[in-house]
Amino acid sequence: MIIRDLPPLDVMSPSEIEKIHDISLELLQKEGIEFHNEEAREIFKKNGAKVEGKKVFIPAKLVEEQLKLAPSTFDMFARNPDRKVTIGGGNTVLAPGYGSPFVMDMETGKRRGSTFEDYKTFTILAGNSENIDVVGGVLVEPDDIPDNIRHAKMIYTGVKYTDKVLMGSAMGAKKALDSVKMAGFIYGGEDYVKNHPVLISLINTNSPLQFDNRMTEALMVYARNNQPTIVSSLSMTGTTAPSTIAAALVQQNTEIISGITLSQLVNPGTPVIYGSASSVVDLKTGNLAIGSPETAKMFGGTAQLARFYNIPSRGGGCLTDSIVPDAQSGYESMMVFLTGVCSGFNFILHSAGLLENYMTMSFEKFIMDDEICGMAKEYVAGIKIDEDYLGKKTIMDVGSGGHFLSTDHTYRHMKELRQPGVSLRDRYMSDCPLPDIVGRARKRYQKIVEEYQAPPLERSIDTELQNFIEKLT
Amino acid sequence: MIIRDLPPLDVMSPSEIEKIHDISLELLQKEGIEFHNEEAREIFKKNGAKVEGKKVFIPAKLVEEQLKLAPSTFDMFARNPDRKVTIGGGNTVLAPGYGSPFVMDMETGKRRGSTFEDYKTFTILAGNSENIDVVGGVLVEPDDIPDNIRHAKMIYTGVKYTDKVLMGSAMGAKKALDSVKMAGFIYGGEDYVKNHPVLISLINTNSPLQFDNRMTEALMVYARNNQPTIVSSLSMTGTTAPSTIAAALVQQNTEIISGITLSQLVNPGTPVIYGSASSVVDLKTGNLAIGSPETAKMFGGTAQLARFYNIPSRGGGCLTDSIVPDAQSGYESMMVFLTGVCSGFNFILHSAGLLENYMTMSFEKFIMDDEICGMAKEYVAGIKIDEDYLGKKTIMDVGSGGHFLSTDHTYRHMKELRQPGVSLRDRYMSDCPLPDIVGRARKRYQKIVEEYQAPPLERSIDTELQNFIEKLT
Repeated sequence: MIIRDLPPLDVMSPSEIEKIHDISLELLQKEGIEFHNEEAREIFKKNGAKVEGKKVFIPAKLVEEQLKLAPSTFDMFARNPDRKVTIGGGNTVLAPGYGSPFVMDMETGKRRGSTFEDYKTFTILAGNSENIDVVGGVLVEPDDIPDNIRHAKMIYTGVKYTDKVLMGSAMGAKKALDSVKMAGFIYGGEDYVKNHPVLISLINTNSPLQFDNRMTEALMVYARNNQPTIVSSLSMTGTTAPSTIAAALVQQNTEIISGITLSQLVNPGTPVIYGSASSVVDLKTGNLAIGSPETAKMFGGTAQLARFYNIPSRGGGCLTDSIVPDAQSGYESMMVFLTGVCSGFNFILHSAGLLENYMTMSFEKFIMDDEICGMAKEYVAGIKIDEDYLGKKTIMDVGSGGHFLSTDHTYRHMKELRQPGVSLRDRYMSDCPLPDIVGRARKRYQKIVEEYQAPPLERSIDTELQNFIEKLT
Repeated sequence: MIIRDLPPLDVMSPSEIEKIHDISLELLQKEGIEFHNEEAREIFKKNGAKVEGKKVFIPAKLVEEQLKLAPSTFDMFARNPDRKVTIGGGNTVLAPGYGSPFVMDMETGKRRGSTFEDYKTFTILAGNSENIDVVGGVLVEPDDIPDNIRHAKMIYTGVKYTDKVLMGSAMGAKKALDSVKMAGFIYGGEDYVKNHPVLISLINTNSPLQFDNRMTEALMVYARNNQPTIVSSLSMTGTTAPSTIAAALVQQNTEIISGITLSQLVNPGTPVIYGSASSVVDLKTGNLAIGSPETAKMFGGTAQLARFYNIPSRGGGCLTDSIVPDAQSGYESMMVFLTGVCSGFNFILHSAGLLENYMTMSFEKFIMDDEICGMAKEYVAGIKIDEDYLGKKTIMDVGSGGHFLSTDHTYRHMKELRQPGVSLRDRYMSDCPLPDIVGRARKRYQKIVEEYQAPPLERSIDTELQNFIEKLT
């Protein structure tokens, strides 16, 4: 968990934020938004919205009332109490890459379909990371196991190999319910789960201005069970959103606040996150440009809008459009991740591993991104200042033209400045004669995979989970 | 020139800034600072400072009075009027790498001593850049030409191959005077130069708490000629500075404000920049860690202190500790450069080309860093917002489930989102089947070097400059 000591970096003025809010309310009230799930439409109708076909016209007042009910911060629990995280405020909770269909093979250097074995490996890398807080999501899409058990195997892998906070499945009501049941086994009963957020799930809108059936079902299941969801838009400029950043923010905001409204109508006060994976598209090629400054700015606006609503935010990540872990992948990932943290995101999905926008997960890139996460953490921790840290006495003692190599002040503080920026070289690789960082990342990867010790899982829980998965097949 | 539309990112509170200021004043008054130049000591003495040997004890009141005289912004002029820059406010003016003794050879991939030919090539790369504003400094140290003409050849190269703002030599009074004389030839007389800042020069302190003779002489020459200097500290934690960031900032501030005080005593109101290249040292290895989050934070404090004094600031850059242009060099460079711009630096030296902290200049890295400069520029330009940009009408027209590919709004705005983050691939490399970014950077390098057209220099100026250099030998 990153704890930010710096004020958030704003990219818009308060009046600009209000304009976006006002247009969103007007759009929801007058133009409406499609919910493909009937039950959701009924809930809106019962609360005073007009419904025509799939379209729901939501009164501005209803939206504003419901947005106020969502909590500004909430805790999430893991089987290891030390892994508890607080989502909101100056905190940023990190989850790794999510949803890639491909993996970059370490042997061939080429991308290939991802497997359950890859899923396990990425879980181990995430489990080992000092920075990643959340596992169990769609780290990669394991195509070699059947769809009907995939969600359950992913959660099981998360809890078997780590003791961190878990993500749930958003693929319809059935899989969301399965996720909640498994959480019951893990945390000693459904009652505990009802009172403790333990599963966080990603609910995407279907831009422009739609919610599909499957994700809406899952949203409602999780809301009823008091489990947090990230209501997220992936609006793409010029294709599924207008081609200006401001208008994409308007459309995205309209979608997200309608989803959050639904969550609160289902269960007032249920935890929810205001989220975005929206991005710029280069219309010359049709490619997403997620490693771009425009995407970074759009994320800045997203975080600020969430702050306006006093609801935790999600966006950012170590994002790049590069297809290999090269300098471009480094500078793009740092730009989007660091500005995301500085903008005040409370939850960052895609913190590690992604190449080629959201398409490919790379083991080497995961290791490098983990480094970026640590660097951002150190940066936003700010500068420690007290009388001793200000060092007046040591400066006086050394005086003009001296040196600080042997002062008491240096002995006391030297370990604090530990070069995290080159830790892949320094901390793990002291025997490594400075090859390219890809080589260093592979060496570190080998070390982790060979030495990682999964935190033991109680045998009874393990058995219950395995039996549950067996019955699904 | 980068124009920042976002508020500056602060890393300290106002009271913390004041504490640093207060300790600096106390140190200057009670502990003193060494000036190795006699004339400088005399000037301080005449203005009420106590002098003992090389040490000058400067009254707090004198420092505070003089700091107020330094201008908060000033213009710098180039031979092309369109290349004029304003230093201060929300602007960031960029200069390339400075002072490296080595170049990374493109053929061998290894570092070697730098030559005057390399100097010319980097000048062409800087001249071609859309982002770099200032040339003529010590782009690399050209060891193959004699020291007594080196400074003049560098300025000549800057003005011969580009029409941008120039840097002067800080290597003592003689070379500073030579620089001012050359500026007279270029800009049509010494009178013009006296009234127009046209040369900016880097004056380094000698930490801890010293100013050497050579740099102090140059500072005074430039101040008398109304030419801006960057008074910069390169305090290294644990060696030439205390090992905490806060104390390093205290020491650095003490040095810088005493240098600025001298500049104002020499010529009240002369333009000056509050500068830093200070950095963290990893005491396990003794290496500088300039691509680290600690260094980025220290720079943030530097920019904030300069804002406190209402004097333009210098720091940051595309800095890395990596020895090759790999992912590490990408993410470290982006971190330090982008946080530098967001922190509000008005002048960034080392914007392009550096590898291995300040030791080596790389042609490929220069091309990549230019990309980073462009990305940062786009990011801090903020989000354009007006009625049309907010796009209410187009969102209504398209409605739920439609697309924006063929709307009038998209046609009007699509060119604005042009993927600068992947321009090395996209804008110049459309015929290039996605090799590693080093290959793409080399291809772009070739294109620039082959196609670059130097802006013609008036023959009479060219002759005057050449004659001047001839006489130096």
